[in-house]
Amino acid sequence: MSRRLKVSAAQLGPIHRADSRKSVVARLVEMLKEADSRGSKFVVFPELALTTFFPRWWMEDQAEVDKYFEAQMPSPETLPLFELARSKGIGFYLGYAELTEEEGKTRRFNTSILVGPDGRTVGKYRKVHLPGHAEHRPASPYQHLEKKYFEVGDLGFNVWKMFKDDIIVGQCICNDRRWPETFRVMGLKGAEMVVLGYNTPTDNVYAPKEPPYLRVFHHNLSIQAAAYQNGIWVVATAKAGKEDGFWLHGGTAIVAPTGEIVAKSNTEEDEVVSYDCDMELGEYIRNTTFNFAKHRRPEHYKLIVERTGVKVEPSN
Amino acid sequence: MSRRLKVSAAQLGPIHRADSRKSVVARLVEMLKEADSRGSKFVVFPELALTTFFPRWWMEDQAEVDKYFEAQMPSPETLPLFELARSKGIGFYLGYAELTEEEGKTRRFNTSILVGPDGRTVGKYRKVHLPGHAEHRPASPYQHLEKKYFEVGDLGFNVWKMFKDDIIVGQCICNDRRWPETFRVMGLKGAEMVVLGYNTPTDNVYAPKEPPYLRVFHHNLSIQAAAYQNGIWVVATAKAGKEDGFWLHGGTAIVAPTGEIVAKSNTEEDEVVSYDCDMELGEYIRNTTFNFAKHRRPEHYKLIVERTGVKVEPSN
Repeated sequence: MSRRLKVSAAQLGPIHRADSRKSVVARLVEMLKEADSRGSKFVVFPELALTTFFPRWWMEDQAEVDKYFEAQMPSPETLPLFELARSKGIGFYLGYAELTEEEGKTRRFNTSILVGPDGRTVGKYRKVHLPGHAEHRPASPYQHLEKKYFEVGDLGFNVWKMFKDDIIVGQCICNDRRWPETFRVMGLKGAEMVVLGYNTPTDNVYAPKEPPYLRVFHHNLSIQAAAYQNGIWVVATAKAGKEDGFWLHGGTAIVAPTGEIVAKSNTEEDEVVSYDCDMELGEYIRNTTFNFAKHRRPEHYKLIVERTGVKVEPSN
Repeated sequence: MSRRLKVSAAQLGPIHRADSRKSVVARLVEMLKEADSRGSKFVVFPELALTTFFPRWWMEDQAEVDKYFEAQMPSPETLPLFELARSKGIGFYLGYAELTEEEGKTRRFNTSILVGPDGRTVGKYRKVHLPGHAEHRPASPYQHLEKKYFEVGDLGFNVWKMFKDDIIVGQCICNDRRWPETFRVMGLKGAEMVVLGYNTPTDNVYAPKEPPYLRVFHHNLSIQAAAYQNGIWVVATAKAGKEDGFWLHGGTAIVAPTGEIVAKSNTEEDEVVSYDCDMELGEYIRNTTFNFAKHRRPEHYKLIVERTGVKVEPSN
């Protein structure tokens, strides 16, 4: 019998600074119910899904920053989501800002978790490719301070066995999706589906001349290439719309292992996008064009791990 | 003053088994003249541009196979192309089957060269990602015997400084374009433009159920993602059309560092596609989203070089 998984991407519209955790969790709960009504067994929520995208603001008071972080998960506010999911037998991916004490040190990460249909947290990921900057840029219309508020993730790119068919699921977050290294590492560990959430501004604050139409194009291009080049399903869920006036693009999408977008959002509001994924579809790709064992040549890839930045190195 | 390069992709229609080298070179010469008339300083010819795509046939007689190979380059037959290019001050990329004696051993590679506008060969590449198989598959409508007729390339992925503006040009061949590792290595060496030729069947012989419309989609997806994710120009030139009844797709394209296809072929015949490339366009991408030095995290990429094939490795 074919291995299938009906997945729902649960896109969030804007979360404003004034919105409480409770009100946000109520929205996540509503979308989980909608996904359940469609027969979904897996719901993918966005990155930093419990608050506004706070790295857009320069804050000097760490106590103010920490209000956007979660010191426990589930927390009293998020517990209703965990309980509902468990009662429905639904697994989910959730992004949040993680505050943790490790070896006597306070640490902060941009984190996501995979929760199994039994309600237990299966796996955690901490964002590796933090975009943006750490310094204040007062001339910029908004900040992108992920490099200030978060540490670089220390857990690497991993995959987990989930659901009744033992589907191999990987996870990453937002900007990670632009880097082919992200998906290749998970592909080499046997990923069949990679899920992620994102908050991506509608304009490119670093390149004011870049036409905004390129933003969703680049998003699609990255996740479609990742899907095809590893023969995997990719589910990418946006937080979208204008948060306190700052505009994030939508473009929530479910991508087949062929690289085709098979389902997508058409709003920048709370919206559930679902697809019944045939897990066998990626197999022919992973066994032919992208049969890694037959075709990859790591002896010629060494620079990928030996060098971080560009060094102009012509052979003549 | 801005650094620009007007490039032409010189797509070839079919080359049949009966066609002589001389007749093929005459077609290349015609297209080089056309490119020159448009002011191009760089012409990109296809992979194995001097013969039919011979790996589609099972041949047991090595002497028969070797008729498709070049033991010298330039050869008497190809010299007119080199001489015309030098007289016009045009550089070019040319793919061919290379037969060479090295350390007392006969070796065969699927090779490409970059020739400078002064007529000198600047750099050589030998295809790393050989697709297909080595064994005879009599039940298949055609063979794809690159793994039989060629050795895996031994020169790695390199870049060269070319033209009056010292543009950093990389090269690869056909199936290499599907592998993000190919472009990342050249990107890390400072590539500003990567050029390649290809021969790609219109159908997927390994997956007869795959809709043929995916073939050009996968080609485009791969080169567009490569361009964007490295902030480089990509020029990809087809050999296209029905060679002795075996159909190769077109899709010759020039891709900007934004990932956009800015020029493309619309036939499966000999056709020159040109674009005046602004070499600065990729800079904002390489300095922001894909500023490798700021954002890459090789410590989490190790598996890319440590592992060739998939090993299913869930963390739970």
